[in-house]
Amino acid sequence: MAALTDLYQLSMACGHWRSGRARLPASAELFFRRGPFGGAFALGAGLAQGLRGLRAFRFSAADIAYLRSVLPSTTEEAFFDYLATLDTSEVTVSAVPEGSVVFARVPFLQVKGPLLVVQLLETTLLCLINYASLVATNASRFRLLAGPDVKLMEMGLRRAQGPDGALSASKYSYIGGFDCTSNVLAGKLYGIPVRGTIAHSFIMSFTTLEEVQPRELAPLAGGEAVDLPSLAESWLQQVCELLQTPLEKTNRGELAAFVAYAVTFPRDFQGLLDTYCVRRSGLPNFCAVALALHQLGYRAIGVRLDSGDLSQQSKEIRQVLRACGARFQVPWFETIPIAVSNDISEQSLEKFIEELVEVNGSPCLKLTEDEEKMTIPGTKTVYRLYDTAGHPFMDLMALEEEPSPRAGQELEIRVLGRLGETCKVVASAVEPLHRTYFKDGQLCEPLPSLPEVRAHAQVSLSQLNPAHRQLHDPQPYPVAMTERLHQLLTKLQEASQ
Amino acid sequence: MAALTDLYQLSMACGHWRSGRARLPASAELFFRRGPFGGAFALGAGLAQGLRGLRAFRFSAADIAYLRSVLPSTTEEAFFDYLATLDTSEVTVSAVPEGSVVFARVPFLQVKGPLLVVQLLETTLLCLINYASLVATNASRFRLLAGPDVKLMEMGLRRAQGPDGALSASKYSYIGGFDCTSNVLAGKLYGIPVRGTIAHSFIMSFTTLEEVQPRELAPLAGGEAVDLPSLAESWLQQVCELLQTPLEKTNRGELAAFVAYAVTFPRDFQGLLDTYCVRRSGLPNFCAVALALHQLGYRAIGVRLDSGDLSQQSKEIRQVLRACGARFQVPWFETIPIAVSNDISEQSLEKFIEELVEVNGSPCLKLTEDEEKMTIPGTKTVYRLYDTAGHPFMDLMALEEEPSPRAGQELEIRVLGRLGETCKVVASAVEPLHRTYFKDGQLCEPLPSLPEVRAHAQVSLSQLNPAHRQLHDPQPYPVAMTERLHQLLTKLQEASQ
Repeated sequence: MAALTDLYQLSMACGHWRSGRARLPASAELFFRRGPFGGAFALGAGLAQGLRGLRAFRFSAADIAYLRSVLPSTTEEAFFDYLATLDTSEVTVSAVPEGSVVFARVPFLQVKGPLLVVQLLETTLLCLINYASLVATNASRFRLLAGPDVKLMEMGLRRAQGPDGALSASKYSYIGGFDCTSNVLAGKLYGIPVRGTIAHSFIMSFTTLEEVQPRELAPLAGGEAVDLPSLAESWLQQVCELLQTPLEKTNRGELAAFVAYAVTFPRDFQGLLDTYCVRRSGLPNFCAVALALHQLGYRAIGVRLDSGDLSQQSKEIRQVLRACGARFQVPWFETIPIAVSNDISEQSLEKFIEELVEVNGSPCLKLTEDEEKMTIPGTKTVYRLYDTAGHPFMDLMALEEEPSPRAGQELEIRVLGRLGETCKVVASAVEPLHRTYFKDGQLCEPLPSLPEVRAHAQVSLSQLNPAHRQLHDPQPYPVAMTERLHQLLTKLQEASQ
Repeated sequence: MAALTDLYQLSMACGHWRSGRARLPASAELFFRRGPFGGAFALGAGLAQGLRGLRAFRFSAADIAYLRSVLPSTTEEAFFDYLATLDTSEVTVSAVPEGSVVFARVPFLQVKGPLLVVQLLETTLLCLINYASLVATNASRFRLLAGPDVKLMEMGLRRAQGPDGALSASKYSYIGGFDCTSNVLAGKLYGIPVRGTIAHSFIMSFTTLEEVQPRELAPLAGGEAVDLPSLAESWLQQVCELLQTPLEKTNRGELAAFVAYAVTFPRDFQGLLDTYCVRRSGLPNFCAVALALHQLGYRAIGVRLDSGDLSQQSKEIRQVLRACGARFQVPWFETIPIAVSNDISEQSLEKFIEELVEVNGSPCLKLTEDEEKMTIPGTKTVYRLYDTAGHPFMDLMALEEEPSPRAGQELEIRVLGRLGETCKVVASAVEPLHRTYFKDGQLCEPLPSLPEVRAHAQVSLSQLNPAHRQLHDPQPYPVAMTERLHQLLTKLQEASQ
């Protein structure tokens, strides 16, 4: 794991080592400059895998041999010997609990330890935490848009940055509030619920009803099996009459595929409607098979749309399903879930949130956070201040050695962006933001399970003031520093000029 | 590896299996609908890892147990037994050689085999090939913009989709024409050249010259070691006079960091200029240390800029370096490489290509290709037709059983997008686009090394007609089909209506 870093970290490490600074006490902080996706908040994620990375931090003999071949030939041999001794036994990590809401410019992870090790860990931690937080944040925004009841499904595997990028996307979408993934391996490895029925290719591989076999399906309540293709065909005629659409325009291969799937999974039949014409083929064929299933006591689980104007089509489909439900006295038809996929964005999700059930949160994101280039110096303790309504209203950075602020106490602080003036705030509750997770090379508190992290994220989001939670043009969340931290900052700025 | 797939592939597989269709001969093709990034071409990449994925395709006992828990409870037990027997021993894969230029709508990989296995491989292959091709294409566009001599460096590790996404980015940027990566693990695993010197954090960790130790550096040619901090200080005074910039505005910590690095790596000193003010601190400090090194017989390897208006600053830096070179009679100062990083885009690269040396090709990309939803049926052979100048001018799809077109022969074809009319073309050379790489569960030709693939990509790009190679608003590259393939298509369209 130690070799998963940028080469310049090693050149710098050599510089520090040669200057006798390798073991100077050092600290580093991870944070981002602006809230991603135009919002005020992010979800901090990737902590557990970051900590696992810390535990595994070691240069193997092979790593050292490789480094010897790529660092400048003038590099002293003793430096490589030193690298081979490094581990994280003197490293301490404190961080916000995974899944917490975090804000721009507030450190959400702090690493302390010998300078050289802290330096070498930087890229590794960024790699493990950046993308995780970005995906979790993105997922949480979809969840906020969709409300608590809509099901959100992540299906990014085929577009991800390779297998591991895909697995991370599944995991952190789940943490951010998605319900399930299409990725079987993610389900197996992380216990995330997996979902999926059929794709266009399945439908296109059928041409006629004669290809369907076996054809017989027994009623759910038991009894004599019936020929499902014939039953579906007879329903199709009635559906076409009701919808006033010509029977000969329905695609026979599509009907065959639906029937074949329904025979195989009678309790899990979902119709993918847009392989051919939705209105004249996909929808009539689906209704026919769903009505046939209904006659045998089964319920279809829904329909899916994967192209075109998803919002407009969803409305039309809902109308047809209602008409069918009314005409053939099948009440559950009216509320049958309509799932949509294909390039779902926040905008399109917002547009048709009422019709929507499943969402393709394809994780093709542009990373918008970045490491800060000019930082606020010193090791800081961060407090989150809550108002009387229970919303966090400010994150306050203080020097580690300062006494912690108390609820009800009047605090003199300076807000980032308006550092020239002091102002006074009183908090109803004060929470230290960070917990110590790693010390002396060991995890020092048990890490929560994935569902626990996911639940924590939803609690953390729900506490937000709606003005800060809104996805676009949010009210900026104030980040402040204590008077003493500000004095230190001013002194250092003067010294460096 | 078999579990790295979407769940619907398994539901569909069960549908096929139950319909007795599991072993029907099937074929699938990978291609994209539109050239990514606004261009006409892409580089096909990911073949080697896709083929490795095929060889590893097997459901383990643990996979099967997991699938049993997530597929519908009505799934027959015999299906799981069947899954456990699957492998790729009956699969054939043909593809364009990795690193070849490929065009929209032309299949660049074909998989043949039993329906069920081909179905299950789809997502896995897309995951392994999509992103690889996208990154290689992106890199090739940067290479075309930069010309053959500029060095391009990939530094995306901290922003990638986890460790594996980063490794893929390094590998496929290299294939597309980048020269090196910052990622040490990528260098170790794939033999890609790695580069890197210092970051802002190194510079910020120094405050005064007193922190520099050891301080002595011996001249390259041998002789008595000198105190480098003092030497650099005396040069700094001269540089500040020349540049008419106040000595007290140069940052002492920055100077100390430069000196410390130069003592450690005297042959590899690069100055990162923008930790403080470039013009008043970074640049004078760099020149001072570089002149001190020069006096001892060493050459600095360059400077790097990581923020601000890179283009404008590069020009100013070049002027200062020229002035220093002239005043102090150090000719190599005039041509010292200026490296820039920080959100390099095609646009910014184009803008200052003349000053540019290294580029941060951060792989934060939006995937723009997609699987086609309505496909041209049948197993096809694809030919690339070349004109008398040696440029490919058309890709021609034919039925597998058709005789291959010959150079000089008049071919009657139909061009996609204008299928209503036939037209006639004559090619000076005809190349079958695909080679068979995998048969009977085995690789059937040796895979080229990474440098070989990289070289092939450059040859493939160089053959392109400039009208097709241009990065924006390129002349569309015509893709055609033979008259016989077109007849089959027409027949199938009629049948499905």
